[in-house]
Order: sequence, then C-alpha cells, then structure tokens
Amino acid sequence: VTPPLDGVRVLDLGTRIAAPFCAGLLGELGADVIKVEQPGRGDFLRGLGPFVATEESASGAVGHSLYWAVEGRGRRSVTLDLGKPEGAGLLRRLAATADVVCENFRPGTLERWGIGPGDCDPSLVWVRISTYGQDGPYSPRPGLDRVGVGFGGLMHLTGEPDRPPVRVGVTISDYLTGAMAANAAIAALFARDARGTGEGAVVDAALYGSVLRVLEWTLVAYDRLGVVRGREGNRLANSAPLDNYPTADGKWVCVVAGSDANFARLCEAMERPELATDPGWATTAARVSKVDEVNELVAAWTRSLTAAEVVDRCVAHDVPVATAHTAADIFADTHVAARGDLVTVEDPVIGATRQQAPFPRFVGEPVVAPAGAPLLGAHTREVLGSLLGLDDDALDRLAAEGIT
Amino acid sequence: VTPPLDGVRVLDLGTRIAAPFCAGLLGELGADVIKVEQPGRGDFLRGLGPFVATEESASGAVGHSLYWAVEGRGRRSVTLDLGKPEGAGLLRRLAATADVVCENFRPGTLERWGIGPGDCDPSLVWVRISTYGQDGPYSPRPGLDRVGVGFGGLMHLTGEPDRPPVRVGVTISDYLTGAMAANAAIAALFARDARGTGEGAVVDAALYGSVLRVLEWTLVAYDRLGVVRGREGNRLANSAPLDNYPTADGKWVCVVAGSDANFARLCEAMERPELATDPGWATTAARVSKVDEVNELVAAWTRSLTAAEVVDRCVAHDVPVATAHTAADIFADTHVAARGDLVTVEDPVIGATRQQAPFPRFVGEPVVAPAGAPLLGAHTREVLGSLLGLDDDALDRLAAEGIT
Repeated sequence: VTPPLDGVRVLDLGTRIAAPFCAGLLGELGADVIKVEQPGRGDFLRGLGPFVATEESASGAVGHSLYWAVEGRGRRSVTLDLGKPEGAGLLRRLAATADVVCENFRPGTLERWGIGPGDCDPSLVWVRISTYGQDGPYSPRPGLDRVGVGFGGLMHLTGEPDRPPVRVGVTISDYLTGAMAANAAIAALFARDARGTGEGAVVDAALYGSVLRVLEWTLVAYDRLGVVRGREGNRLANSAPLDNYPTADGKWVCVVAGSDANFARLCEAMERPELATDPGWATTAARVSKVDEVNELVAAWTRSLTAAEVVDRCVAHDVPVATAHTAADIFADTHVAARGDLVTVEDPVIGATRQQAPFPRFVGEPVVAPAGAPLLGAHTREVLGSLLGLDDDALDRLAAEGIT
Repeated sequence: VTPPLDGVRVLDLGTRIAAPFCAGLLGELGADVIKVEQPGRGDFLRGLGPFVATEESASGAVGHSLYWAVEGRGRRSVTLDLGKPEGAGLLRRLAATADVVCENFRPGTLERWGIGPGDCDPSLVWVRISTYGQDGPYSPRPGLDRVGVGFGGLMHLTGEPDRPPVRVGVTISDYLTGAMAANAAIAALFARDARGTGEGAVVDAALYGSVLRVLEWTLVAYDRLGVVRGREGNRLANSAPLDNYPTADGKWVCVVAGSDANFARLCEAMERPELATDPGWATTAARVSKVDEVNELVAAWTRSLTAAEVVDRCVAHDVPVATAHTAADIFADTHVAARGDLVTVEDPVIGATRQQAPFPRFVGEPVVAPAGAPLLGAHTREVLGSLLGLDDDALDRLAAEGIT
C-alpha cells in the first residue's frame, strides 16, 4: 500500500552523513527527497572511497564511490549554488513546495545566504544538524561525527579498560542524530497536519546531544554517586561468562550467559552439566569472584569448535549468542536471506548493487529497494522545470551561469 | 507551546531498553506514555545497577537503580499480569484507548496471551522490537543488544585491528532500533491521522536490522569488490593525522586533521607552520606514506599539553577536536551547561537527579525535564480508574487476585 509519508516533500541540503541520512529515512518511509548540491562538486561523499573503477577512472579519476552509492540512494539530485543570490532565490521557491528541509551546515551559514528558517514559510519543518547545536559558546566550532562521539562521552566508554578509547566502527553520532532528528521532524509534521496547527518547527540536533541521550546511567551515576564510568571492553561488572570468545575458525562469538539460568543452559551446551549445580560455579557471586577462570572455561570450549558449531550448540540450549559477523558472514547468512535484508539497488553508474534494506519494515508490506544514488544534477531540469515552471531557456541560462 | 505528540497515547509493554526507549522518545515529544509491568516484579532494569542506597537497602535490598531512574522516566506505571486472561482483557481495553503500543517480547508471546495486533483494533500502531525480527528462521532465538551488534556486523568493525572486536560502550542496537522504530511509528500516525487513512500499522524492528542499516559502505563493498571490511581502531585508511592522542593530564583528545587544509591549520596550532608547505608533509599522499610518523608528531605535541590546552589551540585554528569526555568532563563543560543538556529529574525515591536532556530540541521551546521514573504500579488505580472506569471495589479485587 501507499507508504506513510507519501505526499511529503523533503529538501536535503546536507552533505556527508547526518542530514542526508535523516532525509533518506524520511524517503524510505515514502517522502519525495530532493537533494540540493553544489554545482560541479556535489556531496563530499561522492569523493570518498571505497571506489569501483569506472571508465573515467582509467583516465585518472578515482571511480565511483560506494559510500555515496549507499548514502545517496533514494533521492533526486538538483544542483544549485546557494551562495549566489539567484541560487538562494530558487532554493526559497523550492522550499515553498516542500514540507521538510534537512541541513547540516555550520550554524549561521543558511542565514548568511538568506535561506534560513526566517527567510522561508513558517509552515516548514527544519532539521538542523550540527556538531555542537545552533547555540551555545562552541556552536561555531568545526566538527564531525568523531567529535560528537568524543564530546558526548561515548568514546571514553568504548574499548578495553587498559587501552586507549576507541571509536565506534561507523559514524554512529551521525546516524543516531539523523534518526532522532527524523523523529522530531515527523512529529512536527503530525502536529502541523494531523492536529492542524499549520505551524512548522525548527529542530536543533547536535551530534553530541544524541550521544548524551544514550549514555544509559553514566551521567546520573556521576551526579549521585560520583562514579566516573570507564571502559569495560566486552565484559560487564558482575556478569560472567559474558565476552567475545575465539573460535577454531578464527572468528569471535559473543556469548551472553551471565545470569544463573543462562549459565546453566550454557553448561548443558558445553556438556558440563555438573557445573550448573556446583556451588563454585552455579551462582553469579561465585562466578564473578573468578571472572577470568569462568571466561577461560568458555574460551577453551569455543576454541575447540567453529563459530557455526558454537552458535548451533548455544541455540539448541536457548543461550543468547552471535558471531561477530563480517560482511561475508552477513551475505552468507540464512536468516538475512530469508528476511530480505539485502536489497538490490540499481546504481546509475555501476548497475546492480546489493545493500542494506530500509529499516524498519512494516508487517505485510514488501521491502522496497530505494532508487540508486543519482548522478550530480541528474534531476535539475526535471525538478526546476516541474516544480518551479522554469522553461528550457531559463534552465540553459542557469546552467551556463553556474547557478545550477 | 504544546508539544507535537500531545494527545497521543502510548502503551509501553517493553522491558530493558529498546521498546521502553522508543516509548520514551514518543513521550519526550509529548505523548502520554503508560508503562504496563508485571505485578511484583516490573521492568528488569529496576533490578540492574548502579544503585543508590535506600532505607530498604540497609535491610538487605540492593537500593534504587540509577539505570531505571533514566530509562524509566517520563511515564506512568500500571501493573497488569498479561499472562492471565483477565489481565489480557484489561490490556485490550487499555489498548482501545491508545494510539501506539511498544513491545519487545520474543515473537509470538503477545499472540499466545491473546493481545497481539490481530486481537486489537486495526487503527493501532504497533512497534514490535525483537533481536531477529518477527519472522525468519532465527526469529524464536533468544537475544539482546549484544547479539544485535554482533549479528548486524558492527562488533566486527569496532576495536583495534590487532585485537579482538569490542562492543560499543552502550547498548547501541537497542537505542538505534528504538529510535528508528519511533520514526516508523510516528510516520504511521501521520498517515492514519493527517492523510486520514484511519489505518494502523505493525512495525517489525529487529535489533540487527538497525545495525545493518548504519554499516556505511561495508556491505556494498563486499558485494562489488569482495572487500571484507575490518577494524581500523581510531584511524582511517588514507587519512592522517587522525587518532586519539594522549595528553599531559592523562586524557585522550581526538584530533581530525587528515585533509590538507586541516593539516595546515593544525601545523599553525602546533607552531610548526613550515610543515604545511613541506612536500614531505603537506599532502595526504605524503602523510599516508608515513602514518606512524605523522601520528607520533601530533602525539608528541599533545603529550606536552593538557587536554584543555590542546582543544584551545586547535579551536583557535579551526581544527576539529574533542576530548574523549568522561562523565566528570561533561558535568564540568561550559557548553553543556549553556545549552542545558543536563536536566533535573525528580525521582520519586531518591529525589533530584541530573540526567541527559530529551533529544532533539525545538528552537524557541524550553527543554522540559521528564517526570521521574515511577514506582512500580504507582498509577495502576489512577489509570484503570480513569481510562477504564473501574471502581474501588474492582481495583481492590484485581490487586488482591494478583492481576494488578
């Protein structure tokens, strides 16, 4: 059936991850997303690897970015030089046809160009993503995902206790901020159109702020107990066995069996049922008093088996377990295949690509593959022609003058 | 003004993080959230530390959970034994007053109790969160956050290349799944009420699926290049300097200066301007060819300064930088204070607590502190009385029979 955000139009003025991801989520829920890019250059991700070699790349260019092929999908591309008055004017006219604008310039940039919220219709919903937020003393500072992760306190918590902090393996503050900003944007549309206020809203989403929000008990424990939470690697205080364990085929499996019930099941899986009733092993208190010994017991077992064997035996006894999947594991997985978690996206340059599916899904609705990431400006004429009524002469002039 | 989801009612049937977080996000956007908990036991988080000692704890109990104090905030608590027919019947009546139901039982549980989507009004929006999703061969398996992170491929990418994979420092698949499921739920409300379909929806959100969605180029690069992406620690191929660097006061600072422009600015900050024009240092290619030397240059500089000094000098030259903040750093930070990112939540047991603010915020609207996490069943009589019209006798009987 019709997707939920059908009829909603989103302008994506962003670059890299956070704002484009937010716009993309709205698109995967059914919105029409139009990306506005700098003529001749476009989104920064277009130039970030890894690359697939293309015809041009043989002659010196780098090829086609697979990063862009994922994060640029599901939208049309219009080029517009927002720093020029005529470009800004066209953006204001485009915005008048839209419901949501997503952007992640440094605060103040849109205002300098005359295309901020105050320059547009108050019924628009704005998603403004930035490292430090739209106000406050650090607001003008440069930044990006890693700054959000570090400043927001997640970097300090990630990694092993006796090693330096380590970043999360993907740009998690970009993604989390984009996802949570999308919540606020859709809620604002709901208020505007379902509750009928008719009013837009301006969402101020700082990368570090989304990270703060998911710090669990870290902040309140400092406030009330003076506890400065540190890194714990894969273990948790007062829980064993719980770790990533090595397997005979060089993989790692996460086994979660810290509770007495799960430990008893794991003992069955390990064919050591006597430990489940042994006072030296059966209780959390006993196991926590010899954490290393408990983890070594499990590691010795996992080292004797392949990851698939460990998983099978744990599953047979209802113990939570997962292999630390590589991309190859994900492509080979039965469940991933059965669920259709990899969709084929037709890229306009490199053709069929298999990518992660839109998330989440609706029960009873098919998973739809987004359109491939567009060529820079592929839809400039189509969009400015149909939405703004510009004719061929006007479009030719704009292109010739470098406005589009 | 009125928050965007004012008038929306959400039932939170979840436990631990993912579904309760989703419900909490809707609550922070203005929805009325009613948590339904097992009589006598309640949400699992109520029993997870860290704890603040309370009167009872002196006599043996563990005290009041700070984890619960954060994740349980912003909702009312009703006890109801859903496994008993009368409890299930009351849940169906409560659901008839609601717009959204959030749950994260193992798939099939609600159906077994006769309170699944098919048992309730089709105008309801359901958020069903589970480790593996509502269908597919692994759907019945046990799991939790770490399984989502491992199975979804993020564990393998996080950590140092020569060490085992490491978990993200917080339950990131719970949070990410909850946030993205909230998107779909609000979009479904929008379709139902603003587009006027009148139809509900059932969101199927698997923990591993949200993780897949944010894997960047990991999957498509395997598909098209056969590349199995690995861990890179804090560095990225083809970018230097970029790492966490140690400081004289025992902290870590993330400095992001891999581009030539940022490197030139960092050279100014380090008072080594000559390097910015030295062919051995000035280009990305030159720096990548001697990554360790480049990072050691920066580390030698950061080790001579406090983290605050490194940040000040980088900021003065517009270089992206952040200290890997601890909880203590966050409480001491000027920008966090100016933005009001810590709010005072009045907990019914332990009083004023400072916690992370709702996220994101709307420009021009005050940040509102959520209500404190409720005592188990504190609102049972109020909710069942006002919404279902139960009188005191009926409420007394339900309590006496262990239904509430």
